[in-house]
Amino acid sequence: MGIRHIALFRWNDTVTPDQVEQVITALSKLPAAIPELKNYAFGADLGLAAGNYDFAVVADLDGEDGFRAYQDHPDHRAALAIIAPMLADRVAVQFAL
Amino acid sequence: MGIRHIALFRWNDTVTPDQVEQVITALSKLPAAIPELKNYAFGADLGLAAGNYDFAVVADLDGEDGFRAYQDHPDHRAALAIIAPMLADRVAVQFAL
Repeated sequence: MGIRHIALFRWNDTVTPDQVEQVITALSKLPAAIPELKNYAFGADLGLAAGNYDFAVVADLDGEDGFRAYQDHPDHRAALAIIAPMLADRVAVQFAL
Repeated sequence: MGIRHIALFRWNDTVTPDQVEQVITALSKLPAAIPELKNYAFGADLGLAAGNYDFAVVADLDGEDGFRAYQDHPDHRAALAIIAPMLADRVAVQFAL
């Protein structure tokens, strides 16, 4: 069973464009580092609708084992360490593809 | 430019499994009805992580025009009419693919 993991972030008021670039750089490394990632897409909100959150990450993985391997991977944890202090809120869902 | 639209829903306390099935039925009709939808995936949260929202919709569209056509399509509006009273919260992002 394929699993799609989605996380949406709302940044806190102090976040700078440079910090967002650091997030993008860190996430860009993950597909090459984490074989369980079958598809990976992420990016900043385009401003097309009021009230949106600021950033989205979408990871397609092979089953729950793949999801756990992604969660626990040191490069993913390094990216989370960059993201965590930037967050005002984070909302996530994992659903079956 | 491809656009990925994501909406995550948290249901209110009165929502029943039958209502969720109605949402799934309504959303299942949209790919055939809305040509601007290049890819469409949705589903209930699998319960793999605490604090997740309950449902996710992911729509891949061709540019802002495609996104607006999806938003305004009568079948999409009909699905929203089913979903709206079920919502405790909705969080969305659109980003460039």
